[in-house]
Order: sequence, then C-alpha cells, then structure tokens
Amino acid sequence: MFTVLTPDQAWSKLEPHLSAIDQTEAIPTVEALGRVLADDIAAPADLPHFPRSAMDGYAVRAGDTHGASESQPAFLKVVGEVLMGRPAAVSLSPGEAALIHTGGMLAGGSDAVVMVENTRTADASSIEVYRPVARGENVIQVGEDMARGEALLSRGSLIRPQDIGALLSLGVTRVTVYHRVRVALIPTGDELVPPGDSPGPGQIRNTNAYALAGLAAQAGAIPLPLDIVRDSYEALREAVQKAMAQADLVVVSAGSSVSTRDVTASAIGSLGRPGVLVHGVATRPGKPTIIAVIGGKPVFGLPGNPASAMITFDLFVTPSIHLLSGCRPLPARRYIRARLTRNIPSAPGREDFVPVKIEERNGELHAEPVFGKSNLMFALIRADGVARVPIDRGGLSAGEFVAVRMF
Amino acid sequence: MFTVLTPDQAWSKLEPHLSAIDQTEAIPTVEALGRVLADDIAAPADLPHFPRSAMDGYAVRAGDTHGASESQPAFLKVVGEVLMGRPAAVSLSPGEAALIHTGGMLAGGSDAVVMVENTRTADASSIEVYRPVARGENVIQVGEDMARGEALLSRGSLIRPQDIGALLSLGVTRVTVYHRVRVALIPTGDELVPPGDSPGPGQIRNTNAYALAGLAAQAGAIPLPLDIVRDSYEALREAVQKAMAQADLVVVSAGSSVSTRDVTASAIGSLGRPGVLVHGVATRPGKPTIIAVIGGKPVFGLPGNPASAMITFDLFVTPSIHLLSGCRPLPARRYIRARLTRNIPSAPGREDFVPVKIEERNGELHAEPVFGKSNLMFALIRADGVARVPIDRGGLSAGEFVAVRMF
Repeated sequence: MFTVLTPDQAWSKLEPHLSAIDQTEAIPTVEALGRVLADDIAAPADLPHFPRSAMDGYAVRAGDTHGASESQPAFLKVVGEVLMGRPAAVSLSPGEAALIHTGGMLAGGSDAVVMVENTRTADASSIEVYRPVARGENVIQVGEDMARGEALLSRGSLIRPQDIGALLSLGVTRVTVYHRVRVALIPTGDELVPPGDSPGPGQIRNTNAYALAGLAAQAGAIPLPLDIVRDSYEALREAVQKAMAQADLVVVSAGSSVSTRDVTASAIGSLGRPGVLVHGVATRPGKPTIIAVIGGKPVFGLPGNPASAMITFDLFVTPSIHLLSGCRPLPARRYIRARLTRNIPSAPGREDFVPVKIEERNGELHAEPVFGKSNLMFALIRADGVARVPIDRGGLSAGEFVAVRMF
Repeated sequence: MFTVLTPDQAWSKLEPHLSAIDQTEAIPTVEALGRVLADDIAAPADLPHFPRSAMDGYAVRAGDTHGASESQPAFLKVVGEVLMGRPAAVSLSPGEAALIHTGGMLAGGSDAVVMVENTRTADASSIEVYRPVARGENVIQVGEDMARGEALLSRGSLIRPQDIGALLSLGVTRVTVYHRVRVALIPTGDELVPPGDSPGPGQIRNTNAYALAGLAAQAGAIPLPLDIVRDSYEALREAVQKAMAQADLVVVSAGSSVSTRDVTASAIGSLGRPGVLVHGVATRPGKPTIIAVIGGKPVFGLPGNPASAMITFDLFVTPSIHLLSGCRPLPARRYIRARLTRNIPSAPGREDFVPVKIEERNGELHAEPVFGKSNLMFALIRADGVARVPIDRGGLSAGEFVAVRMF
C-alpha cells in the first residue's frame, strides 16, 4: 500500500506541514543561548554612539598632519589626555593633539587618530608626527558598526554567543523567543522493561527513549520520555493520543517486527488527518520509518533497532524540531569530509549510513567503518559518526572522500 | 620581555598545566548528556543475555534445512510461536520450527532463524523452507553485542546520546562524572557600563562577559559572569583573586589599549606561580592574548575587541575547559571545508582568522569573507564562522579550500 520513498521524497511530503509553534515568551537576552528569535530586531541606536579611536595614539585634526614625513614631521602640542569612559575634557584647536587610547572618545575638534608608533615625543608638551592621516583614519564613526534602524537579527535566528553580545551592546536586554518544542518519546514493545529493572529471558531494557531524548535535547527541544507501551493497537493508539496532548511532536520507537510496524502505522493513522504520509524510506538502516501528521503535529514511528532509531531521528526528526522551533532558514546539515579506509558496499537507489571512526593522519581525516552485525548498540558507541553513501552510488571505494555526520 | 608565540607554541606552554579537576559526582545516567565520565566502565553483563532473532521468520534447527532449495524445500512442522518478551513455550525436536519475530528469544533446541521471505506456508501447521541456513544464522548470540567484562566506555569520555543508550541497556543507571568546570568572566574597563544601563559619552556596554559565557556553556562549563572591574592594578588583582576562589578557570576581558593590557599581565602575574606563560600570540585578531597559570588554575587575559575575544577564547579557553573537564583525549577541533570566494591577504608567520559566511552552491560549500573595519561586533553576527589562514601562508586565494571553524 505504501511505496518506499527516497529520503528527499519523504522529507518533501513532511516539510509543508511543519511551521513554527505559535507560542512565544520574552526572556532575558543573557539566557537566550540556543533559543530562536520570534521577532525581527533592528538596531535601536547607533553603535558606537560616539566616535571611537581604533588605536592607541593621538587624536588630531587630520589637516595638521598633511605632508608630514620622517624628515619633515608635523609638530603638535599635546593639550590633554582622553580618559576612557569619559568625553574628552579638551577640545582641539589647530596644531593641537590629545593622547587617546583604543576605544576612547575623540576629542572635540579632532577628526583622526595618529598611531603612537608614528609619533615621537618632542618635549614635555609636544609630539612629532611622521606620517599624515586622512580624515576619519583610525576612527570608528558613529553608527559605523551598526546604524540605528539597521536590521540586526531576523525572526527565526538561532541565538549564538555573538548574537547575545550584539543584542546587549545595543541595550536589548530582553528578547521574544519561541517556546522550546516538546518531544514525546514513546517506547513500545512487549519485550521492554525499564532501565532500572532486571530483564528476564526474552526481555531487554528500554533504552531508545533515552538515547533519542539526548538527540532531541541537542536539537534544542524538551524531551519527554514516556512509559513503555505494550504491542497492541489500542494501547498504542491511546498512548499516542495522550502524548499529542502534551507534546508538539511525537516519536514512537516501534517494535522491529513487520507486524508491530504495521500496527504502529495503523494506530497512528487512525488518529486524524492527513495521517500517515510515509511508510518506508530507501535508507539502510531505517527502511521501516513511518512519518505521519495528525492535526498539525508530526508523529514518527522509528525502527526499534538503536542505531536505526538514531539515524532516522537525525534524518527526519531533528530538522522537524528545528522547523517547529521557528528556525528559518533550516540550519544546514553539517558533514565532516573524510577519506574512507575501506570499501563500503551498497546498492544504488538506497542511501546507506555506516558507523565510522574518524582518525587524523598527516593532517587528513580518515573514516574507518565500524563493521559488525547489523547496527548493534556498540557500533555507534565505537563510532564518531555515520558515513553517508549517496543514493545514486552502488557503494564507495577505499580512498574516496565521504561525508560523515558526527554523532 | 615576552616574545610573541605561535598558537601551537602558546598551547604547548599551557597544556602541561591542565588536568582534570578532581571533583566527581554520581548522577543518573539519563541526566549525563554532555558530562565527562570519571570512571572506566566495563559491561556488567552480556548483551544480549539470551540468543535473539535478528529477523522475522522461524526458529529452526539448522541441520533440518541443509540441502533445501526451491525445487527441494525442507518441510518443517510449526509447533508454536515465540512471543516477544518471553522465553519460548516450546522446545524444538528435529523437523520442527517455531514462528519468531525480530528480537524474539530463540526457542529451545533451535540454533538458527530462517527469514520469512525464504519460506512458504505448506498447510495449517507446516512450512516449506527454500534456502538452507547455517548454525547461528540470523541470530544475535549471547554477549555478541557486548560481552560481560568488555570495556564499554573509558574515563574521559564525553557522554553522547548513544552512550546513554548503551549504559542503560546494561542496567548502568548511575554514572560518576567530573564536576562541570566553573569559568569566571571578568569584564574590565573604565568605559564599561552594565548592559541594562544607558552609556554616556565615551562609555559602552559590557557585552564580552556574556558572549564568552555562551562559548563557555557550549564547551560544557558553568559560566560565572562577574561585575565590571575598573582599570587599576589593585582592583584587577583583587577581582582575579576573588574569582580564583570560586572558579576553576578565570578569563579577564582586558581593555584594548597597550597600557591596560600591561596592567592586566602584571596584576595576574603578581598572584602566584608559575604566573604569566604567554603574553602575545601570532594571530590576527588576538595578538595581545595573555595566558597564565596561578596555583594550578589557568587565567587568561583576552583582548577587549568582541571578535578577538571570541576567537582567542575558542583557540585557548575552550580546549582548556575540555581538559579541566576531564575529557581525554582532547576532542578534535572540527572544521568545515569550504571554497573561498575571494582572496584573503595575510602575512606568513601569523595565523589569521577571517569571519566568513557559508553558502552552498551546486552541492559545494563556499566561504565568503565578511570584510569591514577590524572585527567590529557585526562581522561575527553576519558570519557563520571564521576561516583560518595557516601560519605558513601569506594569505589565501579565491578558489582555494579553507578550513572554517563554525561559530
């Protein structure tokens, strides 16, 4: 009933349904790291708001230095010093200079700064200037860094350390940001027990909900790991419905067998429109991925295998969190480029992800595949990331460069 | 008195003084994301602890399938189903099979799994098998993922989402981690006012302490932005001393003028041994960087210019935080590789960092330098990262690949 889609096709089906959740809050700028701006912000003032020296030296009238040279220096009378954090106490008349420090406010009458390296003390109250300066030289003019009204940061920006600095420099001490996205994580399976319990024969501990919670937190979301749900249509349906009431996005860590995957898809699909959009993606691992949208909220059914769950989460859930968080444009996926140490077999028409260890040799990064039985827990523990085999390639050869997504 | 060192030389002087702070705490594994393990951890049990099926199909005795083919299938009697999360209720005699799902526990007497795709229902209680399986085929053996006693994670590991999954899978629900490193940030300068105040003529708002706090948090530390300190030897000395009492690492955002830098170096140097190790690094920006160690704690004097402060923090303070945090080996510095769109002039013998915007064109990353007056606030706002001009190159040419550190 469903055809397997390429990862791009699957994303194209989901993306039109994803937009910023419409809850925002005003918070102190100093606490806004990693949050997403909900407003465009224009500079409320000029930066700097006074002409600042970019150098240690002397504030001068540029005209007084014209023609100055080693052999014919300009002589200027030093009439004072500009103290940091204060307007200059002096105003310059022709032939005068004032000592100034980097960041100091230009003295009245001055229009340039001579670097101290291009001067020499002539006597107790005057200097020789060996190089002419142009008007405005070594000066940061009012509004030169940022002019009042200029666009500073736009809605959808993910706030970085330098953005906090820039906002504060203009006195923007509070910002309106989108709420963090709440991600519900539902572990399913008759074989699961909580991590603190001792599993009996045939049982394993629930771990996916917590590993995926880590990925959700790294994407800026609030993870909500929920209780284990048994493999039944009714139990799953009820759990997803409850999760949708408290979260913006729901991830079901589905069982690994075909029958539980089918139950997962029909339980999710029964909850509303448009329902299941994707059931099967041409990746390895990750083929049984289910992507649905119910009443505007994305719901994912991810494979139960730990590596598959993490790789498909990174492919589809992470960018969904970014879009729900209001990030626009979608942050680019960043890959490390490394040289493969061994062949990776694959099949065209399928995107493969292979855990690799990254090693630096002679200044070049190398990617060493971590082989082993299909995506056991420890492949990802031993690995630094996963190498991507493009969908149009039937594998990659040793020595080729490969794109590695760091985990 | 101090010679300008290359970044590598500067780091070599500092690194021998940096080791993990010796405070640890036991925390729940589910809260350990981004923390650093203080103990080696070996697998306390086998994973899996029972033989698991890797496929949907039938548990069989491999010998019963030998010689099976399309034309000569093996006939097996289906004597039951292995339910998930339970030991099989049946034990197989020769010629028998049990229905099993991915992750199910092998039935007694069985030693392999036939994929359902290679079988056909013969009648209500028997199947035909079209392909032979070897002993152990499609089975994950006891301890195959991880054997009891095998090294799982080592002291110094930064805990990632998959590590949380692996620890929990073995029932390790608490881990001992190093304390987070406390980083004191001291803004200095007679021209500074708090971000919430209106600066008068000659004054600017303190922003570096908060931008650097963001970088410290991203490195896993607890940032402690402290009060503004005036430009005096005594005030600075007292502030650094107090900061050292409450933090593991101290960063002074020094003034930009030569005189305040010298005061910073002597105030820091007066506080203990070995004192100032580096005063001047061959980078642009960042030349006036001061690196000291006092009583085992690193103390940095970073340039006051916002871009210089961030770039030198990333170069020296971030790896210092990692080492104090107990991370071993030091996490590799990750760079994005992008093609330069324009020439970057530089001088050999100096490592330059130039803010760049990253753009993807035809599947290739391009780095567009953000030029402008020396490292104003907004160069870093417009940029996605900084491109590094290696110390042995007199600049880079348009079209060359460049290493970009994302910010």
